Amino acid sequence: MRLLDAGELPLLDILRRRFGKRAPGLILGIGDDSAVIKPRGRNLLLTTDMMVEGVHFDLAWITPFQLGYKLVSVNVSDVYAMGGRPEYMLLNFAARRDFDLEKFYSLFDGIEAALNDYKLALVGGDISSADKVVLSATLVGSASKYLGRGGAKPGDLIYVTGSLGDSACGLRILREMNRSVEIEKGKKSRFGPGWETTGPLIRRHVMPCAVKPDRFLRKATAMIDISDGLFIDLSRLCRESKVGARIYAGRVPISAEMKKAADYFRVDPLALATGGGEDYELLFTAPAGKKVDAHCIGEITKAGLRLIDKDGKSSRVPIKGYQHFAY
Amino acid sequence: MRLLDAGELPLLDILRRRFGKRAPGLILGIGDDSAVIKPRGRNLLLTTDMMVEGVHFDLAWITPFQLGYKLVSVNVSDVYAMGGRPEYMLLNFAARRDFDLEKFYSLFDGIEAALNDYKLALVGGDISSADKVVLSATLVGSASKYLGRGGAKPGDLIYVTGSLGDSACGLRILREMNRSVEIEKGKKSRFGPGWETTGPLIRRHVMPCAVKPDRFLRKATAMIDISDGLFIDLSRLCRESKVGARIYAGRVPISAEMKKAADYFRVDPLALATGGGEDYELLFTAPAGKKVDAHCIGEITKAGLRLIDKDGKSSRVPIKGYQHFAY
Repeated sequence: MRLLDAGELPLLDILRRRFGKRAPGLILGIGDDSAVIKPRGRNLLLTTDMMVEGVHFDLAWITPFQLGYKLVSVNVSDVYAMGGRPEYMLLNFAARRDFDLEKFYSLFDGIEAALNDYKLALVGGDISSADKVVLSATLVGSASKYLGRGGAKPGDLIYVTGSLGDSACGLRILREMNRSVEIEKGKKSRFGPGWETTGPLIRRHVMPCAVKPDRFLRKATAMIDISDGLFIDLSRLCRESKVGARIYAGRVPISAEMKKAADYFRVDPLALATGGGEDYELLFTAPAGKKVDAHCIGEITKAGLRLIDKDGKSSRVPIKGYQHFAY
Repeated sequence: MRLLDAGELPLLDILRRRFGKRAPGLILGIGDDSAVIKPRGRNLLLTTDMMVEGVHFDLAWITPFQLGYKLVSVNVSDVYAMGGRPEYMLLNFAARRDFDLEKFYSLFDGIEAALNDYKLALVGGDISSADKVVLSATLVGSASKYLGRGGAKPGDLIYVTGSLGDSACGLRILREMNRSVEIEKGKKSRFGPGWETTGPLIRRHVMPCAVKPDRFLRKATAMIDISDGLFIDLSRLCRESKVGARIYAGRVPISAEMKKAADYFRVDPLALATGGGEDYELLFTAPAGKKVDAHCIGEITKAGLRLIDKDGKSSRVPIKGYQHFAY
């Protein structure tokens, strides 16, 4: 069966029945010209992201379920990065008219799994035809107090919440394997250094989990999620805060799995960890002297971005990361 | 110059400077992980729409300025259709890396013109690369009281706010001409029945204006905007209200221009007016006996959708309109 065989109106009905659940504060969900919500919390957070086949993902390497899950995670990460709580999601989906119906349902299975994990409600959106699969999601969240990128002060320490570069390394593995792995069904796949190494890295790429900042939120002075790469996102935080930063190469958290896979590929793990992107870990700053449950990787300075290598040598931070319009 | 030559980060900076204005209730606009707003009004309205090149528009027939303007109108129409006031917009834009920079700016000129017309603020979004131009917008509006599709009662009269089929006819003209017309710069173009006829129709297609329901809002019992075609959108309203409808063919408002162009093309003006789509007029119901400033086209019945022709003959309403996944 193809989308064409099911028909647009029946598909919208199916989605409406499936996602038309009650949710706190939701007055009117899927099915009218707009959704209606009763805003809670003092601040409302709004964020949106688009994912285009062939640019953001390749259906040869990611399953529809994973894609749906990832789309939600990526948007939730932006709300968490502001110290907010995700509440409602709107979704636009476009695909070829002969797109497989099973895959369509599987994509929405992944979306539903993520909605449940993050306690979010799908309240609106649309489906349409297109040459390629295109997804865009908008998330509405709430926060009694929000945390932006602009509050870092010289002397603050710089933290990340988890190992970096795993996702970029996972993508590299998928590219080499040139197939997807149904991790969500417990499937494994043989490749190079073995599933114990590659499995966690692939999972980080295809089904990233957004990180909740609750455990350190009150101590943090500025925050951003790492989506394009540590260095590029650090430079954004520094720019908004009008400060510089010093990063210690030896302190950037790198997982044992990534190290092993990077060795296999003969690439520098630090390059993957600092420029790879799609980590969806949080990068934040907090005053020195506070006990913070995260990896300290450096400190905020007055100006300039410097990388200190294991021998104590300082160099300018290369601002590398994913840019859509760049050579 | 191409987008590639400008670079993603500089482009985002330009958009941020251009659209980073203050707006009522806006705490934090473009430039962080999420926008932050202070919600006003008792109900918050959320709606989203996607437009894909080759599916929703053809850049041979619509200028980038018009496309930007239309994207905003289409979304505003959904908020108006709920009786709300549009307040904030989020935008995702994707295009080929070699997309012309002038066209990119022109698209945002059109978006800005519409934002000003509707008194809206652009508060966030993203740009990325893709094979085709893809736009998605999310609108946040507010309403002290909202009006859905579900409140029509048997005996209510059915109204539309303006002539129908003009947009579909305008598209037909553009297709025949196979070029775009820079109406926004006062340009005209010769074709068939002449600019006095074709100009208003083309404008309705490429730069539709969303219709504010203020003048009849308190009298209306149910409302929807006509985006896919009168009959398909009427059937949606009736379904949500669990009612039927009787439409009088002779009362469907058809403009003199559309009538003339339809004669030229030898097509039935009523078919364009009832199945054409992209009208962005409002379709609503109100109790009989109320004075309503709109075109009355029929009445709500208990069940069934009937069309009464000029001779009084009744037939089943053909539910025709644009469906993405249909034969």
